[in-house]
Amino acid sequence: MTAMPSLSDAYKGTMYPIAGHGPRNVGVLKKVLAPINGGLDSDIYGKGSIIEDFQRKMAGVLGKDGAVFFPSGTMAQQVALRIWCDRRGIAKVAYHPLCHMEIHEQGGLRELHRIESLLLADRDRVIELQDVLDMTDSVSALLLELPQREIGGQLPTYQTLESIASVCRERGIKLHLDGARLFEVLPHYQKTAAEICGLFDSVYISFYKGLGGIAGAILAGEPDFIEEATVWKRRHGGDLISLYPYILSADQAYDLRVHRMTQYYVGAKELAALFNECHGVSTRPREPVSNMFHVHFAYPAAAVVPILIAIYEETGIGFTGRLTEVDEQHCSFELSIGDLYEALPKDQVRAALRQLSVRLLALA
Amino acid sequence: MTAMPSLSDAYKGTMYPIAGHGPRNVGVLKKVLAPINGGLDSDIYGKGSIIEDFQRKMAGVLGKDGAVFFPSGTMAQQVALRIWCDRRGIAKVAYHPLCHMEIHEQGGLRELHRIESLLLADRDRVIELQDVLDMTDSVSALLLELPQREIGGQLPTYQTLESIASVCRERGIKLHLDGARLFEVLPHYQKTAAEICGLFDSVYISFYKGLGGIAGAILAGEPDFIEEATVWKRRHGGDLISLYPYILSADQAYDLRVHRMTQYYVGAKELAALFNECHGVSTRPREPVSNMFHVHFAYPAAAVVPILIAIYEETGIGFTGRLTEVDEQHCSFELSIGDLYEALPKDQVRAALRQLSVRLLALA
Repeated sequence: MTAMPSLSDAYKGTMYPIAGHGPRNVGVLKKVLAPINGGLDSDIYGKGSIIEDFQRKMAGVLGKDGAVFFPSGTMAQQVALRIWCDRRGIAKVAYHPLCHMEIHEQGGLRELHRIESLLLADRDRVIELQDVLDMTDSVSALLLELPQREIGGQLPTYQTLESIASVCRERGIKLHLDGARLFEVLPHYQKTAAEICGLFDSVYISFYKGLGGIAGAILAGEPDFIEEATVWKRRHGGDLISLYPYILSADQAYDLRVHRMTQYYVGAKELAALFNECHGVSTRPREPVSNMFHVHFAYPAAAVVPILIAIYEETGIGFTGRLTEVDEQHCSFELSIGDLYEALPKDQVRAALRQLSVRLLALA
Repeated sequence: MTAMPSLSDAYKGTMYPIAGHGPRNVGVLKKVLAPINGGLDSDIYGKGSIIEDFQRKMAGVLGKDGAVFFPSGTMAQQVALRIWCDRRGIAKVAYHPLCHMEIHEQGGLRELHRIESLLLADRDRVIELQDVLDMTDSVSALLLELPQREIGGQLPTYQTLESIASVCRERGIKLHLDGARLFEVLPHYQKTAAEICGLFDSVYISFYKGLGGIAGAILAGEPDFIEEATVWKRRHGGDLISLYPYILSADQAYDLRVHRMTQYYVGAKELAALFNECHGVSTRPREPVSNMFHVHFAYPAAAVVPILIAIYEETGIGFTGRLTEVDEQHCSFELSIGDLYEALPKDQVRAALRQLSVRLLALA
C-alpha cells in the first residue's frame, strides 16, 4: 500500500496535461538562446539595440508612440498609476476588487506610492459603465483588466469599453489597461491590439501568460509618459544592467504565439463545453471569451482531489495540479489553453471527462 | 582621410582591453546554460530549489541566517533601509555623499520610501569613526560602501569598521553594508566575507561586478529581516516568476571567480604602479585596496582622447572606452581588473604606458 500522491505530483506525472505551453524549466531559455549569436551585445541599463528595438516594436504593436520594458508587471503598473496620480495631484485610483494590485502585491501601491484605491463593481462581475458613472470620489486613473482574470477571464463588451473611455476623457480620469492577457482577448473582440489600446492612456502587457515567455512586461504610452516611467523604473530597482534574457524570450514568444490566440480561444470554448456537460461541474464564464476559464465543482476539494488523481492515473489526462477551496462545499481551478491543447488525444480527453462526470455523480 | 573613431569604438576595437572579464554579450548566458540540464525546473515567485538553494548558500558565505535574491542592488538596498527606518520610526539614514542611492537611483529612496539622507564625510574620502561620532541627527541606519566606488574604491581600516560598528550598536543605529564589491576587498582586509558581515546588521552583495555574473543581488540578514525583505521585494515588483537566468549565472560566477580576487588585487596594484610612473597620470587610491582604481589625468579630456585612440590603434592595448571630465583641465576613468588582465602581453602594456607618458609630456 502506497500513500496517495499530491494532486500537484499526480498532475506533473500525467502524459497529457491540458493547460499551458509545457513545463517552465531551463530548457525554455536554452531553446530561446540556441539561434542567437553569442556575440550579440547585452543591453546596458536600458540602452542598446536588444532593448530599444523591442520597445519600438511593441510600441508599434500597441499603437503607442513609446514603450519601456520592465522586469515585471507589478512594477510597470504601479509606475503608471503613480505618474497619473502625480500629474493630477490626487493619490487615488479606481479598479476592480480582484485587481492584481489589490490582492497579489502586498499593498505595494499604498506602501510605496501612498496611493489609495477605490474598488468598483462586485467581486463576481466586471466593471460596467454604470460603476464609472456612479463614482463620486475623485480619482486620477481607472484601471481595467482585460480579461478580468480572477473571475475566470470575463470581459465587458467593446461598446462598454468605448463608453467608459469616453466618460474618463470627459472627467479627466486617465484610463490604464492591465493587458496581462490582452492578446488573448483579441479573437473575441475581433479588434487589433492597437484598436483596443487606442481607448487607453497607458497600457501594460505581459509576456509570460498566453505568450509563454519567461518573464517581463511592456508599459506603453505617449513619449512624455514613457520618459517619466523610465525614471520610475530606475527608482524601483528595475533598470537592470542586463534584461536581455527576458527580452529575447519575450520577442520570440510574441512572434511564435501571437497568431495562435484564435486557436487557444477556440480550444477553450470547446473544452469548457465538455466540462459543462459533466455532472457537478460548471465553467466561468460559461463560454470563454479568451484562452482561459475557471472550472467550478459543486463538491468540496477533499472529495474532488482523489477523483482527479484517479482519473489522471487511469487516463493520463491531467486537468490541474491545484484546486482552490471556494467554500466548504465548493472548489475550483483555473485553466489556460496554450500549445499543449492542440496535440492532445481528444478522444481520451472526452473519456476522462466522462469518467469525471460519473465519479462526481457517485458523490451525489 | 577618415573621421576619428569615438573612444568607445576605438576601445572596442582593441585586441587587448585591460579591464573586466570580457564582453557583456549573449554568449555569457549561453555559456552559463550549456552545462545545465534543460529539465531543471524554474524558480516560481521565489520558490523552488534554484533560488532557495542559492539563497541558503550565500547566507552561509556571508555568515547570516537568511538571504533573499533580488533582481537588483538598487531594490535590495532601498528595502533594507526601509525596514530599518520602519522599525525605528525614523525616516532618515546616513551615508556617503557619493553613495549609489544618492547619485544613481533618481532619488528612489526619497520618492518611493520618503526616507531622507544625512551625508557623512566629504566627497573625496571615506566615512571615518569621527564622522559617526559627530552625527547629531537621529538616523535609523548607517550605510557603508566597501570599497567606496566613486572615489576609486577606497576603504577605511578594519579597526575603523569595528569601531563604527560598536558605536552604531551603542546608539541603536543599524549598520548596512553596500557590499557590491565585498569579495574584491577580502584580500586587502585579509578577512572572510562572514567576518566582515558580522559587523553589519544587513548586507547587500552584487554578482555582476568582480564576480562577473549577468545581474542580480543578495540581501542577507536575520530571518525576521529577510521575511520582511521578501514582502518588500514583491511590493517593489522584484518577485519575478522566474529569476533563474540571473541566479544560475550568479552561482557559476561566484564559484568561478571568488577565489581569483587576490589575483585581481595584485594585478590592480601592479597596473596602478605603472600608471603612476606616467607623466601627468595618477591613480586613486595611489595603491589600490581592491581590484579597482581610478586613473586621473592632469589634462583635459579633449586632449587625452586622441592620445588614447592613437595608442589603442598602435599597440592594440585598450585602457578605457570612456573618460569622465573632472573639470576643464582634468579627466579620469575607472578601471576594474578581472579575468582579462592575466592574459595580457605585459611587455606591450608597459610599452603602451610609456607611449602614454611620452605623448602626455608633449602636451606640457
